[in-house]
Amino acid sequence: MRWALDEVRREGATVGLVPTMGYLHEGHLSLMAAARADTDFVMATIFVNPLQFAPGEDLASYPRDPDGDRAKAEAADVDLLFSPEHDEMYSDQVLTTVSVGGISQSMEGATRPTHFAGVATVVAKLFAIAGPCRAYFGEKDFQQLAVIRKMVADLSFPVEVIGCPIVREPDGLALSSRNAYLTPDQREAAPVLERALKAGAASVRAGERDPSAVCTLIGEIIAAEPEAELDYVALVDPATLEPPAGILEPGTYRLLTAARFGIPRLLDNIALEVPG
Amino acid sequence: MRWALDEVRREGATVGLVPTMGYLHEGHLSLMAAARADTDFVMATIFVNPLQFAPGEDLASYPRDPDGDRAKAEAADVDLLFSPEHDEMYSDQVLTTVSVGGISQSMEGATRPTHFAGVATVVAKLFAIAGPCRAYFGEKDFQQLAVIRKMVADLSFPVEVIGCPIVREPDGLALSSRNAYLTPDQREAAPVLERALKAGAASVRAGERDPSAVCTLIGEIIAAEPEAELDYVALVDPATLEPPAGILEPGTYRLLTAARFGIPRLLDNIALEVPG
Repeated sequence: MRWALDEVRREGATVGLVPTMGYLHEGHLSLMAAARADTDFVMATIFVNPLQFAPGEDLASYPRDPDGDRAKAEAADVDLLFSPEHDEMYSDQVLTTVSVGGISQSMEGATRPTHFAGVATVVAKLFAIAGPCRAYFGEKDFQQLAVIRKMVADLSFPVEVIGCPIVREPDGLALSSRNAYLTPDQREAAPVLERALKAGAASVRAGERDPSAVCTLIGEIIAAEPEAELDYVALVDPATLEPPAGILEPGTYRLLTAARFGIPRLLDNIALEVPG
Repeated sequence: MRWALDEVRREGATVGLVPTMGYLHEGHLSLMAAARADTDFVMATIFVNPLQFAPGEDLASYPRDPDGDRAKAEAADVDLLFSPEHDEMYSDQVLTTVSVGGISQSMEGATRPTHFAGVATVVAKLFAIAGPCRAYFGEKDFQQLAVIRKMVADLSFPVEVIGCPIVREPDGLALSSRNAYLTPDQREAAPVLERALKAGAASVRAGERDPSAVCTLIGEIIAAEPEAELDYVALVDPATLEPPAGILEPGTYRLLTAARFGIPRLLDNIALEVPG
């Protein structure tokens, strides 16, 4: 893989990298399409990274479809698909951990304390293998995107990180490989996440400036859905993921939420513009 | 720096990297000479990395000589000297840490628990900046070398790590920038480290096969020196840094020690061959 990309760059071409855990859906394909549009040579990776799953999480049952993934990557005009076996990535015991403090600790990090170190470690390794490139990640995992951006800045990886918009089902549910776990009732209930976030944003457009009132409104809408078990609602700075100190000043924020629907925890987030 | 090295590699030349904290001595210069002999383009870096100093350690007083260093690097035929200011390396608050478990925790890691994470973090950053290269480190910091090798393997950096032999004063003292702190009496006493390690190796040649007896002998020789305050003696596998489980089997091991002489802690180590 490294050899192929070095060869591509030697000829003056640019590389687009799309790291995934497979079970590809339209969200992943939108990342490949963005890479295809921006760069000369598109490499996608499929690796269900054990480092980012804690004991008891769904590593073993994480949905997989290697043949379908290969066909979809080909149809998306990906030039190179890297789908290593576990032992190709980690032939020896892994002792090295890349962790990003602060930004990793709230929200997903509060529920999954070792998750982002596992993500940062495997992404650092993929970046070290890939070399200079543009790397595409979905905004669905918004905190992950912020963690990766910070890691790239701190460690000076020669990588430009590109965040791509969430792709949604017609009823608003953000695409996720874990949607495959949903029962029909849960599936029907799951769009409440986006609906609640939009209601929060609408309250701000209507004049609300208290962040906790916005979060409470969103949480109440989700909690009213019997299939949903709310985990968190947050209103944060989109780069630092810090909540605002007081009332909302004009600017751009992010509204994020996570809730469990039976087995899967689903995430969603939207931009929040506070007008001047 | 990245641009210069990419240009060099585009022309088919190989890059040698010599990361240092400056105050260059013959040990550093031997690394530059090895890089010069092996590779087409030699880059040395000088950066006193704050991440690897704990509060209360000698970051502020660490010896510095930028003009002398520049002259020595030029005389060593280094092609590019990268000596960034603090804010060029860390313009923003650093939240990312690269840590290497297990191998970092004994010996130096026991005395300086955050030290190797600071080393691994800055070296990962230098490797991410430098790109594909051979990187030269002295065996004087033997545990550091093992930590960096493991980090490179775990994160798949496109870097070949080369360990170079310790350079010693005529009386056997291993060269170190921190030797500058020694008073004349301490300086005279400091060669006890190598002398003790050699006595340990000689005892093995004479038939000793009990690792703890070898370490005890070395420790007693060092403890008999009034200027020395022994920190540790270890006999370990040179790759894993694990001590042998029982008596010494034929093979190659490493003997390591550290002791304080007034202000500075000095390190030394030698190879130990156990004949079949």
